[in-house]
Amino acid sequence: MVRLNEVRENEIAVAPPDASDAGLVFIGRIHTPWTSRLECPRQGRQDGPTCEIEIFEPWVPALDGVEAFERLEVLYWLDRSRRDLVHQSPASDGTTRGTFALRSPVRPNPIGTSLVRLLGRDGARLKVRGLDCLDGTPLIDLKPDRCLFTPIAPPQPGDFQTGD
Amino acid sequence: MVRLNEVRENEIAVAPPDASDAGLVFIGRIHTPWTSRLECPRQGRQDGPTCEIEIFEPWVPALDGVEAFERLEVLYWLDRSRRDLVHQSPASDGTTRGTFALRSPVRPNPIGTSLVRLLGRDGARLKVRGLDCLDGTPLIDLKPDRCLFTPIAPPQPGDFQTGD
Repeated sequence: MVRLNEVRENEIAVAPPDASDAGLVFIGRIHTPWTSRLECPRQGRQDGPTCEIEIFEPWVPALDGVEAFERLEVLYWLDRSRRDLVHQSPASDGTTRGTFALRSPVRPNPIGTSLVRLLGRDGARLKVRGLDCLDGTPLIDLKPDRCLFTPIAPPQPGDFQTGD
Repeated sequence: MVRLNEVRENEIAVAPPDASDAGLVFIGRIHTPWTSRLECPRQGRQDGPTCEIEIFEPWVPALDGVEAFERLEVLYWLDRSRRDLVHQSPASDGTTRGTFALRSPVRPNPIGTSLVRLLGRDGARLKVRGLDCLDGTPLIDLKPDRCLFTPIAPPQPGDFQTGD
């Protein structure tokens, strides 16, 4: 079963430092069919239910031009997640793996990322498919999928730098 | 030229709300060859220079198992970016586009995301290729590339839900 808040056998929790190095502003809210963590998909699917991303003012004009992209990267805040586990047991079977080797919502900075298909925009709302988060999840960023985006800014020296 | 801090012709700045909805903890630091914003690549390249991701304690054990993934998603904090532009002109030519239709570092929550190739781990440090950020950039998360990751947690009802 999905984690509610328990620490499981062999998991390792740490005393985390204060989360005060930088501050986030919630720029919107995500509307999905899932109201319980016992129902959410583990990962979004491109043929999943249509969900809505609502943008708050004063950020609505920042959506202008987004319709040109078939896919968007969505960043959101997993506000009900523990932040203190460094080893986790997703299968609840005593075997553990490091948090950075998992896409679990439990992480020092509980930010989820999804790639979604954009179906359309209506003012401050986008219709999308491919999400996996709870209804009401706070939104923190939207970007064009990196594979569809070509930088508009003039070239920089680093653009041409390759490795050894 | 890359933006230092100016607002350009036709760009729109807003009075943003306080960024106090959630707090981040910096979990590490990124080491790259670029010390000036005038040199950084606009986007990382998979054959780019080798860079290092350093993880701070108490998070180092969270790296365990990460070596199994050829590619990682990296989230970092673009600590020198303005956060108040909703329309931007990357080409500085008076034409603008909404912030969410750009992958510019200037955004309400200045979080950068990259997909990097993992070359190896040495204790608290990872060697990777594919980054485009300044030397010293604060790290906020690391996850396996979604395409390489299979959830370990038991299935949930939402996994099987498709749309209309």
